[in-house]
Amino acid sequence: MTNWLPSYLPRHPKSERTGPHRINPPRLLLESFLTLIVLGALLLKLPMATQAPISWLDAAFTATSAMTVTGLVVVDTGTQFTLFGQLVILVLIQLGGLGLMTFAVLTAAALGFKLGLKHQIVAQEAFNEISFETTRRAATTIAVFALGVEAVGVIVLSSFFVPEMGWSEGGYHALFYTISAFNNAGFALSADSLSQYVSDPGVSLTVTGLFIVGGLGYIVMREIFEKRRLSALSAYAKIILLTTLVLNVTATLLFLVLEYSNPQTLGALHGFADKLLAAWFQGTTPRTAGFNTLDVASFTSATSVMMLLLMFIGGAPNSTASGIKLSTFVILIAATRSFLRGNINVTLFRRSLTRETVVKALAITTIAMATIFVGVFLLSATTNTDFLDIAFEVVSAFGTVGLSRGATGELDAVGKLTIMSIMLIGRVGPLTLGYILAIRRKSRLRYATAEFPVG
Amino acid sequence: MTNWLPSYLPRHPKSERTGPHRINPPRLLLESFLTLIVLGALLLKLPMATQAPISWLDAAFTATSAMTVTGLVVVDTGTQFTLFGQLVILVLIQLGGLGLMTFAVLTAAALGFKLGLKHQIVAQEAFNEISFETTRRAATTIAVFALGVEAVGVIVLSSFFVPEMGWSEGGYHALFYTISAFNNAGFALSADSLSQYVSDPGVSLTVTGLFIVGGLGYIVMREIFEKRRLSALSAYAKIILLTTLVLNVTATLLFLVLEYSNPQTLGALHGFADKLLAAWFQGTTPRTAGFNTLDVASFTSATSVMMLLLMFIGGAPNSTASGIKLSTFVILIAATRSFLRGNINVTLFRRSLTRETVVKALAITTIAMATIFVGVFLLSATTNTDFLDIAFEVVSAFGTVGLSRGATGELDAVGKLTIMSIMLIGRVGPLTLGYILAIRRKSRLRYATAEFPVG
Ligand SMILES: [K+]
Ligand SMILES: [K+]
Repeated sequence: MTNWLPSYLPRHPKSERTGPHRINPPRLLLESFLTLIVLGALLLKLPMATQAPISWLDAAFTATSAMTVTGLVVVDTGTQFTLFGQLVILVLIQLGGLGLMTFAVLTAAALGFKLGLKHQIVAQEAFNEISFETTRRAATTIAVFALGVEAVGVIVLSSFFVPEMGWSEGGYHALFYTISAFNNAGFALSADSLSQYVSDPGVSLTVTGLFIVGGLGYIVMREIFEKRRLSALSAYAKIILLTTLVLNVTATLLFLVLEYSNPQTLGALHGFADKLLAAWFQGTTPRTAGFNTLDVASFTSATSVMMLLLMFIGGAPNSTASGIKLSTFVILIAATRSFLRGNINVTLFRRSLTRETVVKALAITTIAMATIFVGVFLLSATTNTDFLDIAFEVVSAFGTVGLSRGATGELDAVGKLTIMSIMLIGRVGPLTLGYILAIRRKSRLRYATAEFPVG
Repeated sequence: MTNWLPSYLPRHPKSERTGPHRINPPRLLLESFLTLIVLGALLLKLPMATQAPISWLDAAFTATSAMTVTGLVVVDTGTQFTLFGQLVILVLIQLGGLGLMTFAVLTAAALGFKLGLKHQIVAQEAFNEISFETTRRAATTIAVFALGVEAVGVIVLSSFFVPEMGWSEGGYHALFYTISAFNNAGFALSADSLSQYVSDPGVSLTVTGLFIVGGLGYIVMREIFEKRRLSALSAYAKIILLTTLVLNVTATLLFLVLEYSNPQTLGALHGFADKLLAAWFQGTTPRTAGFNTLDVASFTSATSVMMLLLMFIGGAPNSTASGIKLSTFVILIAATRSFLRGNINVTLFRRSLTRETVVKALAITTIAMATIFVGVFLLSATTNTDFLDIAFEVVSAFGTVGLSRGATGELDAVGKLTIMSIMLIGRVGPLTLGYILAIRRKSRLRYATAEFPVG
């Protein structure tokens, strides 16, 4: 029997809960994000950050986009920002990607994340506090992993960029794209993203490799690093790896079919190998990464619809990716299948999921749909942009993907504030925000159970 | 304390389950629908049914649209079909609306619909069979209610149509619109639906009244009829009535604001009363009815987005309306709210919902989203129609609404078959179809419970 979850995840020691160094991860997460966005906006507004002055709103938009690792841009990163401005963006990306991984793990622990195979329902009491010591230890481990992967990324990408651009320029490109890729940020130094490397397998495969690993999340990465054998992995890690593989392969094949003869995309490439490489890049990038090697606005409607789904799903929990998360997606399918089969228990890999897990998946999906609905409604009411472009922009912001069919350039002040809010909700997680906003009434009342007609 | 559900709902007597007259409601429902659609298509293909010959596909599309009470049309009902053809459509509408109400109640009973306040989980065993006697009794009650409401509708509408058109034409119009409205079918005798009555409060209010009552469903209608006092109603009936009221009023006000100065819609009407009447009509019609008194293609994008949500939600279970249903919508909100508040129990009106109810709502929402996604994807891949028009068409088909921004006319054979399938899934209910398609394994295995990271 496989382990359900790895055993080294930070447990929630009861003795520490009443200690003197309590912190509240969800609130701390949101406050850190907002503080860093304000600080980032101030720095990006400095004359030394841009070639020409930009508005406060554009500075705030850029800081939010970087901190939430989205990559939607209203000011071109490569030409409008100075080296200083680009470094500010890079630091925000690193803090936004790495920081959230840390906080996410802590939040999970703080929310009463049980790690054994206990039948009991998650205790509501184990909610709000976690010790300073646990924080420090988990944060250190995550930072070591992330920086290790990034060091490898910089070395590999340098081997392609340095011969092309020389040491300083090539090394900087390698650093920029490694941080942007591993943190699933999608920021690029060219306005057309990585389009010039569409037929370059070295750059394409390294960048996709970095953002896929980043999107697997801390738990899975650490397990792979420690266990090395597939059979030794926990069921959770296997599910994340399997779902990642299935979605990436399916999306690549569908992209290949849908765009094969589109003269503005795959049709312009010569040879099947080049088309396959570009399809792989575009098939893997919508689940949060947000780079592109082909023109997004030229994709067919059907391709764009497929991408809407991929952007909605996103990557693994506790990773540099956003979206509703792979696990939520899997639970939606598992719950539907279980119900249709007449099983009252939602099962996955021979384990029953708790009632809380199912309700949580439902809550995340509902909040995600509501956020996207409100966003599409507001942008539809305030702009004249094509509806597909609006839907694409909003889902891209929610999944902190950063792909755009061009609507970013059409946003007015209301539109920019809307997209900024959606990026933030998408990144800190609908539930984190909900936990903070909702009036928490820890009701101990148990009502009588009632049937309720649904279908 | 209010009753949770009325006590007269057909219970599921154990003694009858093994009787000689077993039927399987979900399968019977689908088989009846398919049989009547085929029969309807044969009749509509007869030379006597149309002014000029129509294709087999268009006959099948019309029969499906009528039987699923959708109202999307590829052949104009009033000018292309003869009186015989129109009567075939009317009979299909009546069978599709009334028949499903019957079957839905029976299916609910057969699925082990528990009516007391028992804490136990719904028994999976009480699934597939129900006695012939229960069938006959429930069907009779529903038919009496439906025909009673329709009789009132014909009399009231005749009082408006007969002075205008004379006895025979006026009486026929009253009959046609009563059946089409009460069954939430949305079929009309004019290509522009009820646009000529946009400022006629008599016709507008009678038609909206009929489809709202039809969308409340058999359970609520019967309770209102029997209890008469609001306080005596069951909690379920109160929730359905409250949600109906809130959604209708909100949609009316939003429509008024969004379209007030649109010269092609409300802007063309003189006086606030006329605008309010038209807003009420258009605000209430998307939740399955599908009539219109203004040009749907002229609505703003924001209005169309609001309508997408209303069409997705639909009406009450066991009613002439479709969509995910009001109760599913309420459970999504209740589950999200409960989770955010840290309550493990999903509560509604001081009752805990069972695990099965929550999982069922999740399954319905997932199947609905998957159906709409596949539909939008297929139509995007096969037509060049505007994306908003495609999304509107697919959601309209899923909610069996029948409103269209014009995409119906653009459908090729693949498109028509796609929309036909979606109307059928939308009407027989995602779960009914799922129950039949899924391999039902009544697993008695109970696995160990496991935590699963979601957010
Ligand atoms: K991104
Ligand atoms: K309809």
